[in-house]
Amino acid sequence: MSQPFYALTELVARLGGQIQGDATTQITQVATLEHAGPGQIAFLANSKYRKQLEATAASAVIVTEADAEATQLPCIISNNPYSYFAKLSALLNPPIKYAAGIHPSAVIGEGATISPSVYIAAHVVIGAGAKIGSDSVIMAGCSVGAGTVVGDNARLYPNVTIYHNCQIGHNFIAHSGAVIGSDGFGLAMEAGRWLKIPQIGRVVIGDDVEVGANTTIDRGALDDTVIEDDVKLDNQIQVAHNVRIGAHTAIAGCVGIAGSSVIGRYCQIGGSAMILGHLQIADKSVISAGTLISKTVREAGTYTAIYPFSETHEWRKNAVHLRRLDEMFARIKKLEDELASSKAK
Amino acid sequence: MSQPFYALTELVARLGGQIQGDATTQITQVATLEHAGPGQIAFLANSKYRKQLEATAASAVIVTEADAEATQLPCIISNNPYSYFAKLSALLNPPIKYAAGIHPSAVIGEGATISPSVYIAAHVVIGAGAKIGSDSVIMAGCSVGAGTVVGDNARLYPNVTIYHNCQIGHNFIAHSGAVIGSDGFGLAMEAGRWLKIPQIGRVVIGDDVEVGANTTIDRGALDDTVIEDDVKLDNQIQVAHNVRIGAHTAIAGCVGIAGSSVIGRYCQIGGSAMILGHLQIADKSVISAGTLISKTVREAGTYTAIYPFSETHEWRKNAVHLRRLDEMFARIKKLEDELASSKAK
Amino acid sequence: MSQPFYALTELVARLGGQIQGDATTQITQVATLEHAGPGQIAFLANSKYRKQLEATAASAVIVTEADAEATQLPCIISNNPYSYFAKLSALLNPPIKYAAGIHPSAVIGEGATISPSVYIAAHVVIGAGAKIGSDSVIMAGCSVGAGTVVGDNARLYPNVTIYHNCQIGHNFIAHSGAVIGSDGFGLAMEAGRWLKIPQIGRVVIGDDVEVGANTTIDRGALDDTVIEDDVKLDNQIQVAHNVRIGAHTAIAGCVGIAGSSVIGRYCQIGGSAMILGHLQIADKSVISAGTLISKTVREAGTYTAIYPFSETHEWRKNAVHLRRLDEMFARIKKLEDELASSKAK
Repeated sequence: MSQPFYALTELVARLGGQIQGDATTQITQVATLEHAGPGQIAFLANSKYRKQLEATAASAVIVTEADAEATQLPCIISNNPYSYFAKLSALLNPPIKYAAGIHPSAVIGEGATISPSVYIAAHVVIGAGAKIGSDSVIMAGCSVGAGTVVGDNARLYPNVTIYHNCQIGHNFIAHSGAVIGSDGFGLAMEAGRWLKIPQIGRVVIGDDVEVGANTTIDRGALDDTVIEDDVKLDNQIQVAHNVRIGAHTAIAGCVGIAGSSVIGRYCQIGGSAMILGHLQIADKSVISAGTLISKTVREAGTYTAIYPFSETHEWRKNAVHLRRLDEMFARIKKLEDELASSKAK
Repeated sequence: MSQPFYALTELVARLGGQIQGDATTQITQVATLEHAGPGQIAFLANSKYRKQLEATAASAVIVTEADAEATQLPCIISNNPYSYFAKLSALLNPPIKYAAGIHPSAVIGEGATISPSVYIAAHVVIGAGAKIGSDSVIMAGCSVGAGTVVGDNARLYPNVTIYHNCQIGHNFIAHSGAVIGSDGFGLAMEAGRWLKIPQIGRVVIGDDVEVGANTTIDRGALDDTVIEDDVKLDNQIQVAHNVRIGAHTAIAGCVGIAGSSVIGRYCQIGGSAMILGHLQIADKSVISAGTLISKTVREAGTYTAIYPFSETHEWRKNAVHLRRLDEMFARIKKLEDELASSKAK
Repeated sequence: MSQPFYALTELVARLGGQIQGDATTQITQVATLEHAGPGQIAFLANSKYRKQLEATAASAVIVTEADAEATQLPCIISNNPYSYFAKLSALLNPPIKYAAGIHPSAVIGEGATISPSVYIAAHVVIGAGAKIGSDSVIMAGCSVGAGTVVGDNARLYPNVTIYHNCQIGHNFIAHSGAVIGSDGFGLAMEAGRWLKIPQIGRVVIGDDVEVGANTTIDRGALDDTVIEDDVKLDNQIQVAHNVRIGAHTAIAGCVGIAGSSVIGRYCQIGGSAMILGHLQIADKSVISAGTLISKTVREAGTYTAIYPFSETHEWRKNAVHLRRLDEMFARIKKLEDELASSKAK
């Protein structure tokens, strides 16, 4: 595969920005400052890595105006080098194309509607009455349940499972092992045994959503589980039944969101965080990695609960007192009282 | 699909309870108080949501005797509205039926015994000598290993994997991506390299067990990993080798249980909790979400270890002292001693 | 299947060690001290379980010289009974053999190179130009992407997914549901919407690596994600893009490693630990279960951050003060100052 190439002039014609230096420099690929070579363009988003700028073997760099002075290399100047790089990389690395068609081993249910531009790979199963929108790609071993609607330009990587009667918007990406529409965890105890509560809601997903590998999104118990537009979910996230995730929210790997919680728009949730059930998280909240959110967050802000690590013997010495904090507090109070009363005398 | 409907009289004839109001009211579906409409029945399990009772557009509600006074709607009175609702929903929403049969693309190993009432979907693989009990449904892309026995009335959603020589009881439900019988994490270090310890135990699962999407249960190293009757596992739970989970225990999503731990009967474990290895957890223990259990729990109780979250700048100010708790404690002690000795003078 | 058997003499001839007692004792299988029966050999790695040695019904035991005095049973004496047991178990329990061949339902892409000794099961898909090394076993429903190279003697359990252009060494084991090469979580925000950053790096995996069930390893954004030789990953681990894991490191279940972190060689990371992004972890570091590592670890050591659990009412009483630690610290300081000044008078 010979990579296409672009002169810097062509790039700025398509993507904007100003050129500094040789505008005919030809670019075939993006790379990191550290590993870039001839024909490659790197970016500097943070001035604290200027040193890498000096050492790079890239043919050109994307920088802010402020950082442009720090390099002799041909530059594209942008006020957001990182998003510029994202667009440039997307131009140089378009998604792999698949010729339309349905592999003969795929099994398509009765009444399913598959747009003629769709590619369906080997061993896929599409349920009765399902719909797959135009230009979508369903890779090997995926299963799409009966009555589920997937929008245009979807990309399901191998071995994705979507249950029945779910609704998925356009430009959906699901990575391998993702499961959408599995039963929520609904149980009632009676006479010492669990009764299963049928999960009759759906999963409803907006446009431009990406779901990472082995992430699971349960269907609603009665109402739906809802993922709004432009939500980005990393790998191994668990979204329980009746959760709602607001548009443009991004969630890192291994996060768990318990049932019926409502995450606002433009939130960012760090890896391995945990949101308990029936909570609201305000728009634009930032939750640190590893933080358990146990109460509703009413105001945007940055929230954290991380126990700082130490060498184990240090940790042990200190952690033992966590079970005595109330006592410590009482003893401080008592000291204060005694000191006050001894002064009063 | 026209939904079946039932008059309240028919419902109480089948499920018990008393009617208050118009006993001929016809019910087609369950719904939440908030979203119910005509023909739908909702429930009130907790009096603190009585306000929703006033506003609901449901045709009828399931309530306790105490709450019945708070509504003019036709009611079914039950002492456990939630489990009543569970049974009623199961009546109105029976599992989807699949006609018996084996899809021609399925591959059935030599000597496998498949009950004639079983449905086996496309691209399933059943290993040599495996047994699938009557009325079971094995959906697309599942793999059942050689010699594994699955009881009657099982339901494996698409892309479930069960390894060889496992034993699964009746009424088993496994959601997509669940993996049962994978090797436990058994390693011995010798001369600077890891030796793999063959995992020759099995996974043995009782009756009425449900396993969530992408949950993993490892086979035993030598003895078996055991999941007793009526255990309910949510999504993305990791059960390591030689764990035993007692009957009627329910475990929420993202929990990890390390090797050889024994969880009692009727325990409830919150999401993202972690149980270290070689521990015992007493029957009827309740473990809060996000709590790491590092020692055996000998008595039933509710156990918690959650670091409370704050705004990040607040957290930072306080968390730094976690590494100084031992010092703080010593300083309090010293103050007490000094004050005592100054008083003594 | 009749199990092969070995006399103790044959075992020590193959695996080393000294015999104490009847050297003709025949062994067919390994077992735990607790459950071993006739024909089975157990091991005692830790003297504190000597009691089990007295009670065992095993035909022989593997012990250290020091523990040999505590039993009348025939023994194999080894200075590392656990690794001896590992090798003995591997001898008695060799991996299941699969006859070479490609199941007719498997789909092999154009230009793929499959060694003639490979076994490829039903419903497998191998992408164009991929290579599978000799003696490898690819089980049902696996998907290997275009251009990916898998070394000799690999074993992919059912429903493993490897994306395109990855490189995997010899003796690779991947358990069901593992996903290798999925896109890293790379996003740039522009004008209120997320732009996806193409993930054009690969996953490169060395020799003798094992990956647990439902573990995910993302491909690099620009450079590669790298797993060195003899790394052992348990189930449900998330390895983000551009992580490097050093040789001989073992990581327990449910761990998350965020982007670009570099884990040293011979590290051990406990279950549910979390490593934030862009950190370095020194060779031979030990990270306790449940511990979040938020800063680079420059020196080998054992590191912990676990909040000790209590009964919930106890926890609540103490935890409330975690938000007042700074205040407590200030009050202790003030008391000290006051006492000092009162003494000074």
